[in-house]
Amino acid sequence: MVNDFGKRTDVNELGEFGVIDHLTKNFVNRNASTLKGVGDDAAVIETKDGVKLVSTDFLVEGIHFDLMYMPLKHLGYKAVVVNLSDIYAMNGIPEQITVSIAISNRFSVEALEELYAGIEAACKYYKVDLVGGDTTSSPKGLVISVTAIGQGKKETTTYRSTASVGDLLCVTGNLGAAYLGLQLLEREKQIYLSNPGVQPDLEGQNYLVGRQLKPEARVDMIELFAKSELVPTAMIDISDGLASEVFHLCKQSKVGAFVEESGVPLHPDTELQAINFKLDPITCALSGGEDYELLFTIAPDQIEKIKYLPDIYIMGEMVPAADGINLHTKGGNVHAIKAQGWRHF
Amino acid sequence: MVNDFGKRTDVNELGEFGVIDHLTKNFVNRNASTLKGVGDDAAVIETKDGVKLVSTDFLVEGIHFDLMYMPLKHLGYKAVVVNLSDIYAMNGIPEQITVSIAISNRFSVEALEELYAGIEAACKYYKVDLVGGDTTSSPKGLVISVTAIGQGKKETTTYRSTASVGDLLCVTGNLGAAYLGLQLLEREKQIYLSNPGVQPDLEGQNYLVGRQLKPEARVDMIELFAKSELVPTAMIDISDGLASEVFHLCKQSKVGAFVEESGVPLHPDTELQAINFKLDPITCALSGGEDYELLFTIAPDQIEKIKYLPDIYIMGEMVPAADGINLHTKGGNVHAIKAQGWRHF
Repeated sequence: MVNDFGKRTDVNELGEFGVIDHLTKNFVNRNASTLKGVGDDAAVIETKDGVKLVSTDFLVEGIHFDLMYMPLKHLGYKAVVVNLSDIYAMNGIPEQITVSIAISNRFSVEALEELYAGIEAACKYYKVDLVGGDTTSSPKGLVISVTAIGQGKKETTTYRSTASVGDLLCVTGNLGAAYLGLQLLEREKQIYLSNPGVQPDLEGQNYLVGRQLKPEARVDMIELFAKSELVPTAMIDISDGLASEVFHLCKQSKVGAFVEESGVPLHPDTELQAINFKLDPITCALSGGEDYELLFTIAPDQIEKIKYLPDIYIMGEMVPAADGINLHTKGGNVHAIKAQGWRHF
Repeated sequence: MVNDFGKRTDVNELGEFGVIDHLTKNFVNRNASTLKGVGDDAAVIETKDGVKLVSTDFLVEGIHFDLMYMPLKHLGYKAVVVNLSDIYAMNGIPEQITVSIAISNRFSVEALEELYAGIEAACKYYKVDLVGGDTTSSPKGLVISVTAIGQGKKETTTYRSTASVGDLLCVTGNLGAAYLGLQLLEREKQIYLSNPGVQPDLEGQNYLVGRQLKPEARVDMIELFAKSELVPTAMIDISDGLASEVFHLCKQSKVGAFVEESGVPLHPDTELQAINFKLDPITCALSGGEDYELLFTIAPDQIEKIKYLPDIYIMGEMVPAADGINLHTKGGNVHAIKAQGWRHF
């Protein structure tokens, strides 16, 4: 009764990024310590010994995960990892996390123990401390909110907005595998639902399923950058798919980009399984998401520093904004890359 | 299928605080910057220029709020305020917040604009910056997660665990009003549901309803403490009710307490409405919650500093743990105060 609005605009008309821009456009920053607010992988807060980086993510049952095939321990691990990835994407080191959960009464203490065993495993591996959170009930399903707090240096913090024309576009690791892992799990779920007697057939699919159920964040790359004295000119992590992330880098840096299809790293299992599913492997890389690899740009004179580093691939180059964001296909065609982001309200 | 646990212990067997203790008991802190993890109003992270305080809360539709009588603008305001209150309870000043929302498709852009107008109003009044968040869809209802980040000094940060025997137990403002505001709104909701033609009758109840719909955090008291050079020996904010919060202070400080019923501040409207509802006013103060006042202890030699300060009430004293936590009633009886916390899974 108190919340009756005359006009009603569907959220899907704006899409995820449009909604965030729209809702936050009137906010102003009042504190000198706020170096960067909304609009990057993490907020940047200045302190005397550097910067604190803060990032937060929601994981909602039925939207981000399905407990039919996602073990709670893996879910706990993944919930932490996806947030740490945002801190690494700022070239920082995560040190603390808070974890809040809202749970319906179908969750037992034993189920929560599994979830927290996964959270603890991630804390141990990535050397972060669980420092707080909130535990509450939910009318339906499980909602997890994780906030990660990291430490960085002001001069080496990497934003989305600082790529320049001529910079090389690089990525760590391969893309599209987590998406295909999800498709495999969804397929087995459907088979199980129509015939609960059938055992899941994921033989030989450890790599793809593992990329979906137990992703890792690229702390190794951040350490490698520091050792190599390489500071990317811009960086973002790949959570929504290569297309979305290239779009963010370009929009915020006010540049364009081209991506060579032949330069996009794909795991052999990704290529094989995409074909089995009658999908184009490059589409899986562009729109799949959940890879949690780092997409970054470097000044062209820094190429010597990455040439011999393992697991770093040069995929393209930043160009003037007027040239747009394009994929150069193996067949010699040029396709515009479209921003994605969800529209699944 | 992957999450089938043999043993099944109901979460309600442990209660809120028991669940948190149980799930986090194996976690260790690995970073020197983590001064305080789980177990206080906020985590405490050391920096060269003091400490960063981090607190987070979930607000779940159908559990923490009802959109039948909670205007979205007020909800946005309140979601921020309850988190800022946790930072003030550490004797710190909040400077940044992140806000994440999960929304079902029944929320329009106009509805979200209202929510964010409330968030913005709180940011403006309390001088904090919105620096990030996550926006996602939800299968059902609205979930809001707010994280507040504040600045404090290491030597004046107030914990729950540092009250001593002999300290005076004090509170800012009056208690129980927000709970009675909620009861009034619930009553009108039931009347409306059985007869939608009837207009809500909240005439003369502005104070109680206001305490529920638009609580404020006691930044004024933190400023007053600083001006008076008063550092409480321990502090907590009252979100779950006086009984719960006294219990937390006592448990973590390893002391007992007595509370004088005659010393518990009650607003005249609270006393009147409690009697109308056939409730004992002191029960509303002890178990109602959502007052967002500060409950704190001071060394007895500091009494001169607060004697003439407005809106501070001395309610009792900290005693040896063996003496327990008791209420001295106006009638001269002694009742044990029981810990509350939710059990509403």
